[in-house]
Amino acid sequence: MPGYPVLPEGIAYGGDYNPEQWPEEVWHEDVRLMREAGVNLVSLGIFNWGLIEPAEGEYDFSTLDRVIDLLHGAGIFIDLATPTSSPPVWFRNRYPGSRLVDREGRVIAGGSRHSFCPSSPEYAAASARVAERLAERYGEHPAVVMWHVHNEYGWANAACYCETSAEAFRAWLRERHGDIDRLNAAWGTTFWGLTYGSFDEVEPPRLGPAGQLTGLQLDYMRFSVEAHIANFRRERDIIRRHSDRPVTTNFMIPNCKPMDYWRWADEVDVVANDHYLDAARTDPHIELSMAADLTRSVAGGRPWMLMEHSTGAVNWQPRNLAKRPGEMRRNSLAHVARGSDSVMFFQWRASRQGAEKFHSAMVPHAGTDSDIWRDVVALGADLRKLAGVRGARVTADVALVWDWESYWALELEWRPSIDLAFRERMEAFYEALWREHVTVDFVHPTADLSRYKLVLVPGAYLLTERAAANLRGYVEAGGHLFVSYFSGIVDEHDIVHPGPHPGALREVLGLWVEEFHPLPEHGTVTLTGASAAGTPDAADTPGMTGTIWSERVRPAGARTVRAFADGPDAGHPALTRHDLGAGVAWYLATALPGRPADGGLREVLRPVLDDAGVVRPRDLPDTVELVRRGRHAFLINHDDRPVTVPGVTGVAVFDGTRCTGSVTVPPGGVTVVELDEEAR
Amino acid sequence: MPGYPVLPEGIAYGGDYNPEQWPEEVWHEDVRLMREAGVNLVSLGIFNWGLIEPAEGEYDFSTLDRVIDLLHGAGIFIDLATPTSSPPVWFRNRYPGSRLVDREGRVIAGGSRHSFCPSSPEYAAASARVAERLAERYGEHPAVVMWHVHNEYGWANAACYCETSAEAFRAWLRERHGDIDRLNAAWGTTFWGLTYGSFDEVEPPRLGPAGQLTGLQLDYMRFSVEAHIANFRRERDIIRRHSDRPVTTNFMIPNCKPMDYWRWADEVDVVANDHYLDAARTDPHIELSMAADLTRSVAGGRPWMLMEHSTGAVNWQPRNLAKRPGEMRRNSLAHVARGSDSVMFFQWRASRQGAEKFHSAMVPHAGTDSDIWRDVVALGADLRKLAGVRGARVTADVALVWDWESYWALELEWRPSIDLAFRERMEAFYEALWREHVTVDFVHPTADLSRYKLVLVPGAYLLTERAAANLRGYVEAGGHLFVSYFSGIVDEHDIVHPGPHPGALREVLGLWVEEFHPLPEHGTVTLTGASAAGTPDAADTPGMTGTIWSERVRPAGARTVRAFADGPDAGHPALTRHDLGAGVAWYLATALPGRPADGGLREVLRPVLDDAGVVRPRDLPDTVELVRRGRHAFLINHDDRPVTVPGVTGVAVFDGTRCTGSVTVPPGGVTVVELDEEAR
Amino acid sequence: MPGYPVLPEGIAYGGDYNPEQWPEEVWHEDVRLMREAGVNLVSLGIFNWGLIEPAEGEYDFSTLDRVIDLLHGAGIFIDLATPTSSPPVWFRNRYPGSRLVDREGRVIAGGSRHSFCPSSPEYAAASARVAERLAERYGEHPAVVMWHVHNEYGWANAACYCETSAEAFRAWLRERHGDIDRLNAAWGTTFWGLTYGSFDEVEPPRLGPAGQLTGLQLDYMRFSVEAHIANFRRERDIIRRHSDRPVTTNFMIPNCKPMDYWRWADEVDVVANDHYLDAARTDPHIELSMAADLTRSVAGGRPWMLMEHSTGAVNWQPRNLAKRPGEMRRNSLAHVARGSDSVMFFQWRASRQGAEKFHSAMVPHAGTDSDIWRDVVALGADLRKLAGVRGARVTADVALVWDWESYWALELEWRPSIDLAFRERMEAFYEALWREHVTVDFVHPTADLSRYKLVLVPGAYLLTERAAANLRGYVEAGGHLFVSYFSGIVDEHDIVHPGPHPGALREVLGLWVEEFHPLPEHGTVTLTGASAAGTPDAADTPGMTGTIWSERVRPAGARTVRAFADGPDAGHPALTRHDLGAGVAWYLATALPGRPADGGLREVLRPVLDDAGVVRPRDLPDTVELVRRGRHAFLINHDDRPVTVPGVTGVAVFDGTRCTGSVTVPPGGVTVVELDEEAR
Repeated sequence: MPGYPVLPEGIAYGGDYNPEQWPEEVWHEDVRLMREAGVNLVSLGIFNWGLIEPAEGEYDFSTLDRVIDLLHGAGIFIDLATPTSSPPVWFRNRYPGSRLVDREGRVIAGGSRHSFCPSSPEYAAASARVAERLAERYGEHPAVVMWHVHNEYGWANAACYCETSAEAFRAWLRERHGDIDRLNAAWGTTFWGLTYGSFDEVEPPRLGPAGQLTGLQLDYMRFSVEAHIANFRRERDIIRRHSDRPVTTNFMIPNCKPMDYWRWADEVDVVANDHYLDAARTDPHIELSMAADLTRSVAGGRPWMLMEHSTGAVNWQPRNLAKRPGEMRRNSLAHVARGSDSVMFFQWRASRQGAEKFHSAMVPHAGTDSDIWRDVVALGADLRKLAGVRGARVTADVALVWDWESYWALELEWRPSIDLAFRERMEAFYEALWREHVTVDFVHPTADLSRYKLVLVPGAYLLTERAAANLRGYVEAGGHLFVSYFSGIVDEHDIVHPGPHPGALREVLGLWVEEFHPLPEHGTVTLTGASAAGTPDAADTPGMTGTIWSERVRPAGARTVRAFADGPDAGHPALTRHDLGAGVAWYLATALPGRPADGGLREVLRPVLDDAGVVRPRDLPDTVELVRRGRHAFLINHDDRPVTVPGVTGVAVFDGTRCTGSVTVPPGGVTVVELDEEAR
Repeated sequence: MPGYPVLPEGIAYGGDYNPEQWPEEVWHEDVRLMREAGVNLVSLGIFNWGLIEPAEGEYDFSTLDRVIDLLHGAGIFIDLATPTSSPPVWFRNRYPGSRLVDREGRVIAGGSRHSFCPSSPEYAAASARVAERLAERYGEHPAVVMWHVHNEYGWANAACYCETSAEAFRAWLRERHGDIDRLNAAWGTTFWGLTYGSFDEVEPPRLGPAGQLTGLQLDYMRFSVEAHIANFRRERDIIRRHSDRPVTTNFMIPNCKPMDYWRWADEVDVVANDHYLDAARTDPHIELSMAADLTRSVAGGRPWMLMEHSTGAVNWQPRNLAKRPGEMRRNSLAHVARGSDSVMFFQWRASRQGAEKFHSAMVPHAGTDSDIWRDVVALGADLRKLAGVRGARVTADVALVWDWESYWALELEWRPSIDLAFRERMEAFYEALWREHVTVDFVHPTADLSRYKLVLVPGAYLLTERAAANLRGYVEAGGHLFVSYFSGIVDEHDIVHPGPHPGALREVLGLWVEEFHPLPEHGTVTLTGASAAGTPDAADTPGMTGTIWSERVRPAGARTVRAFADGPDAGHPALTRHDLGAGVAWYLATALPGRPADGGLREVLRPVLDDAGVVRPRDLPDTVELVRRGRHAFLINHDDRPVTVPGVTGVAVFDGTRCTGSVTVPPGGVTVVELDEEAR
Repeated sequence: MPGYPVLPEGIAYGGDYNPEQWPEEVWHEDVRLMREAGVNLVSLGIFNWGLIEPAEGEYDFSTLDRVIDLLHGAGIFIDLATPTSSPPVWFRNRYPGSRLVDREGRVIAGGSRHSFCPSSPEYAAASARVAERLAERYGEHPAVVMWHVHNEYGWANAACYCETSAEAFRAWLRERHGDIDRLNAAWGTTFWGLTYGSFDEVEPPRLGPAGQLTGLQLDYMRFSVEAHIANFRRERDIIRRHSDRPVTTNFMIPNCKPMDYWRWADEVDVVANDHYLDAARTDPHIELSMAADLTRSVAGGRPWMLMEHSTGAVNWQPRNLAKRPGEMRRNSLAHVARGSDSVMFFQWRASRQGAEKFHSAMVPHAGTDSDIWRDVVALGADLRKLAGVRGARVTADVALVWDWESYWALELEWRPSIDLAFRERMEAFYEALWREHVTVDFVHPTADLSRYKLVLVPGAYLLTERAAANLRGYVEAGGHLFVSYFSGIVDEHDIVHPGPHPGALREVLGLWVEEFHPLPEHGTVTLTGASAAGTPDAADTPGMTGTIWSERVRPAGARTVRAFADGPDAGHPALTRHDLGAGVAWYLATALPGRPADGGLREVLRPVLDDAGVVRPRDLPDTVELVRRGRHAFLINHDDRPVTVPGVTGVAVFDGTRCTGSVTVPPGGVTVVELDEEAR
């Protein structure tokens, strides 16, 4: 199997390149500017199906040949795409049965990308043909160093509800459940008497009354993501017959909820990701870090590739804010710090036409007399100095459990409260740890956890028995586990585990829950201070305020560290600790915020981290981001004041200065230090 | 015809029982726990069509037989359901023409309940067959004491817009209007030239431009509710051929707007109702009382059955708040106080599977070591002590006019203001009277009103000439009538009564309206104080603030009690009184709130009640609920302080103590006193 | 070609007359009251297709004959309608292929008006037939003085997405683009590889994923408005064969965004408009003035007709506020002041039935003992005194560029910010000028601008090269141009002009934009004070606050008048001035409010107006509206205090008093002065 890294040396730098939008004279300027900026890799041909196959079975590679030769001649490597995310107009018209149908039964129009059914056999055939032609032609081309299959699987056609999809779903169900009785049991169809007599009777979860079978809905999500994976596999396997270069596709971690990237992880030779800041967030760089850590985790800790991000504003958010000075550099280097071996952009040159013409680019509409272009050139220079980072790994002592199936299941209708939201809790915990300067991995709940000092479970509403046993084994072997409310409630079919909640975690947590008490909108509860003695009445710290949730915790082995001071569970446990085997299991029964230094998750987690022996810097502002990757320390200052970071000895790679014992990072700046051996 | 009560003695206590969700060993525990809790009635088989008829025409009653025998052996009576609210999956697949189609033309998927067309002849045939089999088999079974046809008619399929429905609608129109000219006149089709040439030309009011014929829309609502009633009648009449037990279905008063329960009232042998608290309300128990009073009124004052409510949280609201301590007991006894002879829950045992697994139950997920279970057992004991209440009636001196047709018509598009909402005004008046400790009946506007001292009309936008004559006759004979703005505007076809507004009520009110002045969003108007002399300039009381509405009232016999002090009608009447024949007719031309003791409806209504001779307790907190049912007084304390209620002499049934002259109800508590003869 | 005016003398006064809704005895009362009110023109037969052609090809003109004769006998003229906006029910049923289909593929139901496809050949044939019959019968009738084709084109069926429409669209594209390569170039289809192989492959822009081709969307809008125009032309040309009376249709300027009224302008013999106040606005009369000025501009400066407005509340807004005392008169006379030669209402008599029964009318439900009726009669008397105004023109020194294509294009998805809204900026500029007592014309960007001292461009996002050249030529020849941000960005196909933004206006403005900086929601930026010396650091005036937008302006000839004091462009230009040829071009790079006297657009524009030599009154409250029409000055006082206006010498036409040098307008009043020759 082809491997990684894809470039002979250094960090890959470049972006999507769409020369078909421009006259040929512009290509030559492009190559000149790419060299000026230090671009060494471009993603080519992502949307050119209609150009290379202008009519069915008629191919025209003349333009592509010229572009590839031009790039090759300039020493720029190519991430060659199959154009299968945007089928040609003729395909749609010739195969109307391939059109995407939404949950309401509406046939989705063309004029954009992704408007095909992922289960369409006509699509499978046509995409395989064009992929094969490309692989045959360019599979051994020296400039082509990797393959970029499709683009952003699941962006607009995550699930289709047409009859072709329905038939494919029924086949998938037969495979998964074997016989209809097992399906009935899994989906709990005795409720409302919805028992199926045969697989033929199953419809997709199209628009219907409230209360649709949640097992049906979850299985349709699983089926749908697997339909996309099958499309990827088909192209990948064709390419592999003609090329030994690594094959990937660009993920959208974590902003494409329907794509379960744990399922995708093993399919690609290199994990690649697209990430865009959410301009409406207060600190969008924290979500960026989370995305990068999750991407690295999906990649199994191996280096990954940032395949797309932006030099400035995007075009598809309500208000597309430009990046502030230095922000593009900070973003880029944060991705590298967290494991990316590339910095790639959408796109090389800003379009004059089409849906994304107001999306920023490496060459903006304004041209090269612009801060964006100067920053692009400077970043290219920076990255050349980071060549030594390539291939290095990031290690983490702490893991957050992230399971897309739980994400899906938690947000189906008719949960105890609409304020129960997967990302809300995941991000609160991530932010608390980020601000405490703790680097985290993300893990599937059935992963090997033995390497972690602390594992946190903020949103595992759905948790299989196998996963629960894994968590329990981790604790018994000495691990520290921290669980948030409404975790471990249902199994993989959304069936409540037997007995009191949280059925899958009662034993490891040493407690059970008598009744949920979701709070009214904007409602709060107060928690008592914590007591080292386990008697919250004699608290050593002040109280704090929870939101969203309260519940009646009944200890059965756990001891109470904080209690509810008011609300429906006043006097009952809010935060508990259970010593089990060689380890510890904590439980928190309300929602605390991730941001403030005191009175929220950070305050709760500090003693938990200490207990678990998680070492991290202290007394640093929570606006500075510190990440170790191999022998390099990345120090990213998100504040407008300089920050001095102690404990850093080595050579600052951008300016070559030595740091002895500490380094001062300028406002908004990034310092990368190659640490001395003894300082690592 | 079979009659009421359904049980040999006492108040019925129990819930929906769905043993098909559980293995048989659980059934035995169920029966043991039912006996512990005092359960004497369960609703059985509501959703088991797919289980008892697993393929078309193939029946399997073995499970049902065993469950019925088990319950019978334990002395638990059965409210046996026909399972026709949730047809089997095979039915849907075999008869695709039976599928529900929504207003936008979308075929509604399965995987939930209620996704069939109420006019489907295939549904009619299939539901008749299964009902007949059940009735044949269990019609004389000694444990089966009543029939529960279907479940919650109109929950998701209140109206269907398929072609079958369209054809049925046309037949219904022929029957109702006789010839097409009468339909044209009724619907006012000359506006926009929408005249029909024949009944064949009529389409249902499917998705269309704004301004669709309101007569068409109202008739479609009438047609649709009658389609459901026809389905009920079919099953009921089949059952009656095989069983002499009372037949009912569970209503959803008042939270299913499309179901005109006045039309339903005479169809059932016993009125049964489902009621759930709206957790987002400030005082949800007042809406509960309104629902109970309206249910009793639909039942013609006879005892009725609370068929479903909840021990704790439901699962389908945005935030499903648990009940507070004592709330389930207060809710249950409030229903009994207002005429229910049963307290039934959805459901007996909390599901592990299906759409409602987070709905509370009598046996919660937490099991029997829980407050919910202890409260369930205690309530069973309470209810045994209330056996003597069974069959007793509640009487009221005051009536509120409630007409579903007016509810429908008022909330069609293109009224003078979107703030005109039926429930808003009905609830404001209900709340004012509740807080003044006045028990009310609800009446259709054509009902015999002679028994009432005061009749209030908060939202009779649509009022027929016959209804208007009824109200006038009531006043002339000495009744007191209180009318709120925008009442009596249109006839049954939504055609404006001739002449100035309010056409149907001008004469009885002694006034006419020159122009409506809806207020802007959040706009207010001030009312002068009231003057006993009818000269608001010399007011005896302070002013108050109205919302939503102002209008130019032109007196024609009425005298002004309060005037508008500002706004578009400053100086003109806001509250008037008209002495007519032996009675009085009041009119209020703006929206006042129902809650505050002063400055709102309560202040306006106090002299009206006095004038009408309505006796009620004074000087009691407005958080205590007082209801007389037969020889029992129910005293429900919704506050967290004890309250002492004077004028109560008798025996408190729960603890057997005697009260002489007054009784103190503990915080959150309920005291029921069997009054001495002389104290009644 | 028939011409204007339509009446032998005076201002036309009346409304829509729908006698078919009433029994014949009411007609006689109608005519009596019309004469009492001075009504001299009614629009007749707008919605009577179903009545005059009750079955296909069967005509019955008996009712219409009688009504026309009755009106004629009373000396009331008739604006005779073709009833083609609301086809009969039989038409819809007989020709189901003619039904409107929305963007989501839903077939739109009947029961209202406008539910037909504008490209339907069956509709074309049927509407032509009925128009021909009417024209034949009444084309020479002496009472019929004009033709009112259809009603409010585009109200609910602006665009249809059925297959018939798709086919018509493809034919239209062939005509427009000639060959498919030109279409591909125009639409920029290389982006996402959406290249068409033939016109047959084009689908309408039905519901699809985000990012649909904007060129496709714009062309569909153009195609759709032309489909309506073709329907109008067909009827108009038929009528012209039988009648020499002017033919019009009633526009909905500016509240029907899909109708590009510049395209419509030359089709009608007289421009007619419907205008309704938006009751939720703070000063709805300013939007009214804008509508009137835009209508006059569409009419090429010639007199136009106010075809519909309201005496009081409408029925289709969320809260339909009544008009305040005097407001109907102010509204009516403001329309006349700005060029209308008529005051017409919807409708004569308030309906008892149908969708608009709560819409006010000349004869309200309350009848003639009402302020509305008294105001209607008084207005009729006023208008008779304004007979001399008829035909006079309004002239303006200032023009605002208004282009419906830019309106459409700017509000397609994926622009830099959703706060970019065409009307928002147009109305801000209009309001600023209105409050500065400056009368404006609206112009298409390719219009001859030579007559204007100042031309403002608040929202020309889409600007063709031809239009840009026109603006540049205007400045070079001595004109003053004022451009707001995000103008001149794209061409007619929504393709970005080459080079830095704003591509079409860089040269005339003497600057380019390096990067857009849309502001976050509710974000603001501060502008420095202005400096006459062009050095904002030494400002002569205080700063001001911008919203929505900031950007990096790079001067290239322009000088900075104000700079950004904070935000992403602090220290860079916010307001610039460029002297070019004999003229001046200003540019403002943020959004300032139109209302306040200081700190907003008014403050910015005052020196601009002065520079351009725009004379206007000073020191008058900004609540008084002043408009010159021919030899008459209209003074409309929107305040509740009297206002004295200097510089007015002549005769007040309503009371005949002479004004010498000034006139005092009472609170809420309107004074019209026929100016002395020398005072004009």
